[in-house]
Amino acid sequence: MAQYNRMNVLQIIRMEGPINKAEIAKRANLSIPTVMKITDEILEKKVVHVVGKGESNGGKRPELLSITDSIYYIVGIDIGRSRTSVLIMDLKGTVISRRTMKTGRTNPAEKLMERVLELTENVVLDGGISRENLLGIGVVTPGLIDLEEGRVLYSPDFGWENVDILSPVKEKFKLPVLLDNSNKAIAMGEKWFGIARDSSYFVCVNIGHGIGSAIMENGELYRGNSGSSGEIGHITLEPNGSLCECGNKGCLEALASGKAIAREGRRAVQEGASALILEKAGYDLDAIDAKEVFAAAEEGDVAARQIIKKAETYIGIGLASYINLLDPDMLVLAGGLTNAGREFIDQIKKVAKERQMKFAGRKVKIRVAELGEQAAAIGAASMILKRFIENGDEILKMR
Amino acid sequence: MAQYNRMNVLQIIRMEGPINKAEIAKRANLSIPTVMKITDEILEKKVVHVVGKGESNGGKRPELLSITDSIYYIVGIDIGRSRTSVLIMDLKGTVISRRTMKTGRTNPAEKLMERVLELTENVVLDGGISRENLLGIGVVTPGLIDLEEGRVLYSPDFGWENVDILSPVKEKFKLPVLLDNSNKAIAMGEKWFGIARDSSYFVCVNIGHGIGSAIMENGELYRGNSGSSGEIGHITLEPNGSLCECGNKGCLEALASGKAIAREGRRAVQEGASALILEKAGYDLDAIDAKEVFAAAEEGDVAARQIIKKAETYIGIGLASYINLLDPDMLVLAGGLTNAGREFIDQIKKVAKERQMKFAGRKVKIRVAELGEQAAAIGAASMILKRFIENGDEILKMR
Repeated sequence: MAQYNRMNVLQIIRMEGPINKAEIAKRANLSIPTVMKITDEILEKKVVHVVGKGESNGGKRPELLSITDSIYYIVGIDIGRSRTSVLIMDLKGTVISRRTMKTGRTNPAEKLMERVLELTENVVLDGGISRENLLGIGVVTPGLIDLEEGRVLYSPDFGWENVDILSPVKEKFKLPVLLDNSNKAIAMGEKWFGIARDSSYFVCVNIGHGIGSAIMENGELYRGNSGSSGEIGHITLEPNGSLCECGNKGCLEALASGKAIAREGRRAVQEGASALILEKAGYDLDAIDAKEVFAAAEEGDVAARQIIKKAETYIGIGLASYINLLDPDMLVLAGGLTNAGREFIDQIKKVAKERQMKFAGRKVKIRVAELGEQAAAIGAASMILKRFIENGDEILKMR
Repeated sequence: MAQYNRMNVLQIIRMEGPINKAEIAKRANLSIPTVMKITDEILEKKVVHVVGKGESNGGKRPELLSITDSIYYIVGIDIGRSRTSVLIMDLKGTVISRRTMKTGRTNPAEKLMERVLELTENVVLDGGISRENLLGIGVVTPGLIDLEEGRVLYSPDFGWENVDILSPVKEKFKLPVLLDNSNKAIAMGEKWFGIARDSSYFVCVNIGHGIGSAIMENGELYRGNSGSSGEIGHITLEPNGSLCECGNKGCLEALASGKAIAREGRRAVQEGASALILEKAGYDLDAIDAKEVFAAAEEGDVAARQIIKKAETYIGIGLASYINLLDPDMLVLAGGLTNAGREFIDQIKKVAKERQMKFAGRKVKIRVAELGEQAAAIGAASMILKRFIENGDEILKMR
């Protein structure tokens, strides 16, 4: 609770600062002594600073607080399936510098990590930030993570089992590092700096090449008993449906993800049901991705339209399952498919509304994520930020 | 956390008592001063008492504590669709007296409540418990409950919308009362006195006439943002499947509940696919319930066997969805269908295992509830017990 209050106070200062303590107490629904205890702590850590005095309300003029944006910076590394993105942000979430590269071959992992570290070094140079101003480095990637050991336990996309990608980062930069799953990072980013700032229980569903999600409860990730919560991509929605990469049939990911849309697009072309999808891909069957199917659908291609409609239906049903089971206050949609246009999102929302039980989840809001492509990297950095807010001494000592 | 520790200490005394404080501290993984603070509190409330002294470990002989089972009693009322059950239990969860009746007509609610109160009065008389020894009355029923107002917001089975069933109980007995949903009560009962005692995050799925569930996190029910969490009966598992009473198609409840099994049994008879199901129902089509379908399946009836197999498959898929999304430490199966025999449960477990994602939910245990038919009424009483443990003064003052 204390940590939650601290995060809350910090968010208010970040969003509303310069702001005085009485006002913070009012917004956070906390007592003034509680707020003073928190602000003393974060003032000492230089996370916030006094920027001047506000108008008097009869007594002394109150001190105004703002987030310090020029002392501490954090690195976020998002190793995605197709792209790797590295950024530096300040404590306000402002991105100072950022670079991306094609992820390319993921094996051997050491080779990939060499390229990631080079990219990171350049981002630090771009930002002109010296090492003593860096609080730490958050690294995120898809797959099942062993948080304590900092290892990737299983990543089918990357062909990794039990791989240590964190040690090279630690050795090179000698800074506090954290490894986590990218869906979890996106949720964290949206909680700290995005659409879910005011949410107390939300689910962030990442619809892209694959489909995953993360559950966030009072600012904390809900991880589950063996760290595998949120696997919405693998709930069965068609018992005898398409084969999924996980080995099961009819998983949401096999029915409605970016790769499922691409697969069905290629099949439509092969079966002669669509010429337009192939045209959109420059007449190269292998180049057909979800984007080409969306483009063909937009121009009225019937086969493409059916593929998209199927994806909308199953994603909507998946969201409704979350609403029926968890009744969250918000569902955040993130990932590449959210760029497919408003109609796609609206149809998903419509199906979710139809499929949620009457009277259930009466207050849930479905929203698109705000941080876009940078969400996972910002989330990775936010994980260090969160740790710093909770236990700044530990982070400062580790550097 | 303090409340959680208190519940934990109480559970240890209940299960292991007579027991000394040092031993409690060891089992609960708490410091001895923390345990002493808690035991002082619950000793003062007479929830536990000193039964003697244990053997010396070199120093003074330590006091041994036990739950007090003869001072406080609690009434639990479970108003079910077909049966209403009322019981009195002591703080150890021992049922002192119990009566059941057919619920019969649920409208007008006042008439039903008159019969429920009469039954309750008789259970109190049976038990020979005087009013001053009663801590309160917990009432549970299916449907969506407004906890704060103590009203049933919506109960399709009962034909209730916004009905107050709590005031008559309060007026008659002048005791603290609580109203809640019966699925939530079953989970509460299994946490306090059943199979889920040691679980920190579990889901209790009630498979009976309908299908519902409740999620319990660290001894607290997770209710959701509008109080409607756990509606697993209404997740869509077949987009164009059978029509559900909720208005949607292909809900788990419409595919695999007791009423779905009965409906498909009647259909099989009407279509001439099974004579045995009709025979089991005494040649009365309307008398076909799930029980008759199970009985016919057991004797090898092909149509009945198919109906049961379909139910097993969809219930297994529903459980796997919970495992993939929430990764709980335990899934507890409760409700009438758990009496259908071991083979039915084993098949459900098998499907759940197949349908959960590889590497996900690695540690989840699927177990059948321990409290059987009494679960909801014991759970109803446990809700008062929990309130008493958390805030005994309030409960004692309200009487």
